[in-house]
Amino acid sequence: MSSLAESRTVGQYLLDCLKREGISEVFGVPGDYNFSLLDTLESDSGLSFITNRNELNAGYAADAYARINGISALITTFGVGEMSATNAIAGAFSEDVPVIQIVGSPKSKMQKDKELAHHTLMDGDYDVFRKVYENITAYTAVLTPENAAREIPAAIQAAKQKKKPVYLSVAIDLVTQPIIFHETEVTQTKSSQTALQAALKQITGMVEEAKKAVILVDMKAIRYRLQDQVHQLAEQLKVPVASLMQGKSGFDESHPQYIGVYGGAFGQEEVTKTVEEADCIFAIGVQWTDVNTSKHTIKLNPLKIVEIQPESVKVGAASYLNVKAEDLLHELTNIGFKQESSIGDIAFPYGTVSGGGEEPIKAASYYPRFQHMLRENDVVVVETGSLSYGMSQIRLPKGATYIAQGGWQSIGFATPAAFGACMAAKDRRVLLFTGDGSLQLTVQEISSMLENGCKPIIFILNNNGYTIEKYLNVKVEIEKQKYNEIPSWKYTKLAEAFGREAFTKQVWTNQELDDAITEAERLQGEKLCMIELVVEDPMDAPEYLQKMRAFLEKQEKKK
Amino acid sequence: MSSLAESRTVGQYLLDCLKREGISEVFGVPGDYNFSLLDTLESDSGLSFITNRNELNAGYAADAYARINGISALITTFGVGEMSATNAIAGAFSEDVPVIQIVGSPKSKMQKDKELAHHTLMDGDYDVFRKVYENITAYTAVLTPENAAREIPAAIQAAKQKKKPVYLSVAIDLVTQPIIFHETEVTQTKSSQTALQAALKQITGMVEEAKKAVILVDMKAIRYRLQDQVHQLAEQLKVPVASLMQGKSGFDESHPQYIGVYGGAFGQEEVTKTVEEADCIFAIGVQWTDVNTSKHTIKLNPLKIVEIQPESVKVGAASYLNVKAEDLLHELTNIGFKQESSIGDIAFPYGTVSGGGEEPIKAASYYPRFQHMLRENDVVVVETGSLSYGMSQIRLPKGATYIAQGGWQSIGFATPAAFGACMAAKDRRVLLFTGDGSLQLTVQEISSMLENGCKPIIFILNNNGYTIEKYLNVKVEIEKQKYNEIPSWKYTKLAEAFGREAFTKQVWTNQELDDAITEAERLQGEKLCMIELVVEDPMDAPEYLQKMRAFLEKQEKKK
Repeated sequence: MSSLAESRTVGQYLLDCLKREGISEVFGVPGDYNFSLLDTLESDSGLSFITNRNELNAGYAADAYARINGISALITTFGVGEMSATNAIAGAFSEDVPVIQIVGSPKSKMQKDKELAHHTLMDGDYDVFRKVYENITAYTAVLTPENAAREIPAAIQAAKQKKKPVYLSVAIDLVTQPIIFHETEVTQTKSSQTALQAALKQITGMVEEAKKAVILVDMKAIRYRLQDQVHQLAEQLKVPVASLMQGKSGFDESHPQYIGVYGGAFGQEEVTKTVEEADCIFAIGVQWTDVNTSKHTIKLNPLKIVEIQPESVKVGAASYLNVKAEDLLHELTNIGFKQESSIGDIAFPYGTVSGGGEEPIKAASYYPRFQHMLRENDVVVVETGSLSYGMSQIRLPKGATYIAQGGWQSIGFATPAAFGACMAAKDRRVLLFTGDGSLQLTVQEISSMLENGCKPIIFILNNNGYTIEKYLNVKVEIEKQKYNEIPSWKYTKLAEAFGREAFTKQVWTNQELDDAITEAERLQGEKLCMIELVVEDPMDAPEYLQKMRAFLEKQEKKK
Repeated sequence: MSSLAESRTVGQYLLDCLKREGISEVFGVPGDYNFSLLDTLESDSGLSFITNRNELNAGYAADAYARINGISALITTFGVGEMSATNAIAGAFSEDVPVIQIVGSPKSKMQKDKELAHHTLMDGDYDVFRKVYENITAYTAVLTPENAAREIPAAIQAAKQKKKPVYLSVAIDLVTQPIIFHETEVTQTKSSQTALQAALKQITGMVEEAKKAVILVDMKAIRYRLQDQVHQLAEQLKVPVASLMQGKSGFDESHPQYIGVYGGAFGQEEVTKTVEEADCIFAIGVQWTDVNTSKHTIKLNPLKIVEIQPESVKVGAASYLNVKAEDLLHELTNIGFKQESSIGDIAFPYGTVSGGGEEPIKAASYYPRFQHMLRENDVVVVETGSLSYGMSQIRLPKGATYIAQGGWQSIGFATPAAFGACMAAKDRRVLLFTGDGSLQLTVQEISSMLENGCKPIIFILNNNGYTIEKYLNVKVEIEKQKYNEIPSWKYTKLAEAFGREAFTKQVWTNQELDDAITEAERLQGEKLCMIELVVEDPMDAPEYLQKMRAFLEKQEKKK
């Protein structure tokens, strides 16, 4: 590691470390305690400060930026700024996204004197917000000229290794102080060879007996950037590959071995059958969450699972610690096993565009149209809600990146995330799929997109409220769930209110949707495009969700 | 205390306790873990659930509601919902506002099993968000049927006594469980008579020697509802009364004894002179923050101060603990002292409307117009920024309530707060004064106002960015502070985008502002009104702020 700390200030060193990680944009909102950080940043030609409309949005944007770029950073001000970003940082923790949250804090003398300053809790405690962040990050540090050269690399290393957010705060006056140099080498952990070889032996035995092996890919495979290795393994083993709900785009979905998303009792029956009848299951980077297990309706024999985690592997009942996934996958591609049975053709639910032109749009007709319009290398950002269930069943083109909060599921995430994606992937097409309910939480980030010249295609599903919530509450009739209603906005007027031009279109029928998509594609690179899909039946929903509701209703009746 | 707990469910008991405190509206956002709470609430005719556009806004709205109503509540969902509200709750802590944050959490079995469920950090820790809230609330509890009858009253009592937010969470399945009754009496603390009498004796001695006493009122006098007692004391002592920056509307500003806001080196010279030359200063509910002390430029002799706090009093160097302000003020009004010297006429900075009709609006011309239009009992909600400095110098009419985050100063607070104020004071006029920079953070709450039939008058000061921040950063030229720029919105188009009608007007000149105010007053009660003030010089600012910048520049040069 080159030493960046010599003859630098704390602030400049911090920024240099960010640049070394490939960060070129830092998100955030200015505040009077982060001026010295922002002034340092503005004078650095290698970094741009991208202002968001609020700190929660900054956190969401940074999250998506990290999903594409590998790591990201945001700068907020003490107290008010950082407290607004906690949801986004907790989300990054839940979803294994390395985000560096940097806070500019009051002058060190004020802190030492326990002054009752603005943006504090007025109790003299200047450590309280760091304590909040201890709960939702993998590392926190309060920087000084003495510790910066040690703490900054340590925090970044923790973020990269654990794929978690980290927290650094620095007093406004210390940012411009010269750093005291004593950068320490960051050591990388290695696999235990004993454990690796033992695991490998057991796995080989299991695979050689297997007739119907399968690979399951999930979120951690994406976060730990194992996709290429999984690809190699799959091609060598010649087995079907399914992804879990939270692992979408972990495997090239255009690949002939890809069979779809495994969704237990709610997913495609053929996929469920293939996975559940397998006699050897490579589960790579899987989290057994309620979402991934489709409310625990999946049925897998634990003794048939090879569970490959970033730092360990479990083969049947045996756990092997200190085995890095990258090392294990490397070895596995060399075991020379190839499955005989053919994969067969699996039909994808949205493979065929259907529905007459004059017919009102429905889940069954617009999801195939979404799938049809996707292109190689698209960045597809999907909001939590009925959309996330429908979009999960879409077959993505090669090279596509799928961004959604599969586990944390904070509504409002996707719009700022799409902005972050636009900034991280300036040469790729970004598509945002959001619902009306969710959009309202963080709508102002569309203004940030317009302001920064981003030109995503935004689909807004207007189904008149929190449809997903109506689906999930099976205890009372939908008419009694007044709280799941939302104001009816004129979404097509938003860009104008934000002071910028955009292509906006409201569609009711399949033909109108087709035409709007054609127009949006024609305008690609010229204008931000917003297409509002107005659905006739607010309870129209993808099949996955209908099955889930039937299941929940059955559970409720059993009581 | 009547016992509400008999034959009730946990959820119903909780709601009954809220109603007993005079809460009739509960703010929040639905989520699948709070359905049972919301379903219980919807079936309760004594309470309405008011949905906000996001949880931060819900927290801000609840804060303002509590400032008017005395106490308030919001309901959020586990993880994602509650994490979005942390800034608002920390703000309520900083500003001494009792807000009850209620969280609906996953099924108790899921929690016990440490399930990896959506909205968690995926580490099985279901207590982590409560731990976050421990840092920013005065009380936290996880409710069960066994402890609810004890914990709910204890939490509410902590909120009321300490004037701080509190946190309660309850698993979705326990909400509908019958409560196990053992409600305990909540004991009220009392003043120590020995300490009270000793303090009274010392104060009487000090007052009798004084020739020029003065009363200073601050935030805690408002939060602890001491205004009437302060009023009585002032009228009996016949001394001038000033408020501190954070204590505005703590004393009837139309009262002849009111002399204005004491703002040290930046405030009105006459007020500063009167306060600093006083030989006995009753400082009631004062926090010596950087804001209240005008960056520590106030000059007061501590030996001349009678510092009356909610639960203690300090007379010169002597502290008396366990003395309740209400008891002390009661005694003080009976000491029979009356000051001889007259108060004299103090001119208020914005007392005279000036500036020709065709002239562009300036701070010097629009603040007097704001003051002139205010009516008795108005609720005046003011955003942090240059506006908060200007508005602090306005003389409020009798009965007016002034709502601003004087200490926490989180930009974006005021718009949702105005919504909360509208819901708490349905028969009063609400005026919102916000800046363009701040409005963008929480703009969607205008939609909530429109949706709920609120008809405030909203003034948006469009000075093209974070003017306050430009003022406070004296280190680099304003042109280099690119980060303090914001997108130029068409604010008058917002209501249309939010799908509702409103009176909107953009004004550049004094005459246009006068006409717009006349029209807004004519439409009062019919429509929500938005008046955008476009200022020619983005650095035009109230005098207080100009003086503060000059002071900061001088400090910077000294280095």
